[in-house]
Amino acid sequence: MELPLFYNAVLAETSLEGVEAYHAARSLRMQPGNLLLVTDGSGIRQTVRLDTVSEKKVRYTVLEQVETTPRPYRIHMAIAPTRKAERNEWMLEKLVELGVDTISFITAGHSHLQSYNRVVNRERLERIAVAAMKQSVQFFLPVIETGIAFDQLVETCTTAGRFIAYVPEKETAPHLAALSPGKESVTVLIGPEGDFTAAEITRAVHAGFKPVSLGATRLRTETAAVMGCHAVHLANLLFRTAAAGNLAS
Amino acid sequence: MELPLFYNAVLAETSLEGVEAYHAARSLRMQPGNLLLVTDGSGIRQTVRLDTVSEKKVRYTVLEQVETTPRPYRIHMAIAPTRKAERNEWMLEKLVELGVDTISFITAGHSHLQSYNRVVNRERLERIAVAAMKQSVQFFLPVIETGIAFDQLVETCTTAGRFIAYVPEKETAPHLAALSPGKESVTVLIGPEGDFTAAEITRAVHAGFKPVSLGATRLRTETAAVMGCHAVHLANLLFRTAAAGNLAS
Repeated sequence: MELPLFYNAVLAETSLEGVEAYHAARSLRMQPGNLLLVTDGSGIRQTVRLDTVSEKKVRYTVLEQVETTPRPYRIHMAIAPTRKAERNEWMLEKLVELGVDTISFITAGHSHLQSYNRVVNRERLERIAVAAMKQSVQFFLPVIETGIAFDQLVETCTTAGRFIAYVPEKETAPHLAALSPGKESVTVLIGPEGDFTAAEITRAVHAGFKPVSLGATRLRTETAAVMGCHAVHLANLLFRTAAAGNLAS
Repeated sequence: MELPLFYNAVLAETSLEGVEAYHAARSLRMQPGNLLLVTDGSGIRQTVRLDTVSEKKVRYTVLEQVETTPRPYRIHMAIAPTRKAERNEWMLEKLVELGVDTISFITAGHSHLQSYNRVVNRERLERIAVAAMKQSVQFFLPVIETGIAFDQLVETCTTAGRFIAYVPEKETAPHLAALSPGKESVTVLIGPEGDFTAAEITRAVHAGFKPVSLGATRLRTETAAVMGCHAVHLANLLFRTAAAGNLAS
């Protein structure tokens, strides 16, 4: 039986409060002496034993602390958010489940600015990211960036792989999975409904972004973002599998 | 500007009714003389011109009819549904967006049978599938199967590729994307919360199902199903890309 994972932003405090304490005390009915895992989202995994348990505060003693290894490549998804908060939040949950390092919610020419502030609610998004990290038993909490303009993102991006996703009808670009390099960090730009403007695409290409497709069908923004992240993971996995096969043969 | 796509189960009728008529008349404010696309989900794409438009009924004349080509491999996802209808419906929408041929909602040993009938509401699921097919501009509507027991599915499955997805902790299985063959039809089994039982896994392996992983992180049921479908598409895409590269070199 695997131990449940809890989030504590300040590990020095050796106690859980708020929703974390309530979840331990009420939902899981944990008792003093029970063991659980704690992370601060920086890669640290602590195994702890509960000392006192109440719905408001759970105190514990750290039995073991391990610094887990980050994956050998980093994924930065830069996304013009959907107009519906529900779809955006679903997207964030799935990106965190798959594993992502940075999510930038950008504004582009076709962005619906009236909905941006409603959809990109940092407090809600941070809460969803923490819940998804715990649910998928990971120890790294992604960085969420908000209020970034497309131009700013494009001009300051320095990852080895830089990609801009197109709607397939526009032109036949190679698939992200066929271009995404092994063990290199990548940034993937995902456009708003209505896609990036021609000027934005030109600007990104000048800044070293390669146009890519994300598949044969037309995907909604939130689906494109999640499949883009998944494609980078699979490209790395197949790259390592192929490398291992070459070593073995 | 691409023409909007509408669904008509009975093409011989050359008219839209219900939500399809309402959508054309009210949401898109279409007028007699306007062009649109119609499909019955069997691969047929009709270009039609509207003759009369009302919220109740839209009549049209077919200008062109094309039988579109199905992809060279077929994907059958066999899934023990989530307990929450919302997550199950999200999963269906995403599977249809990506492209899938058959979705079987199965019951397994750890299935939550009390929620199955509530979650697997055929009428709602069919409506979601039609909406996602139209949204992603596809002309094949997936078959939805309900009320299938795990054993029945496993014993009657005859696709060339047969895979059963594991929670990664259980054992180190190869990733579906590394095993999924090019241009062959596949079935992927996705378990309930709590996973398949040991007896079910044994039974599936005896019936020729290969155990596979779906990635390094622990995925919810609905995420596993969508990423499994996406992995099959990417494996086929990379297989074709590699084959084209070999031809070119």
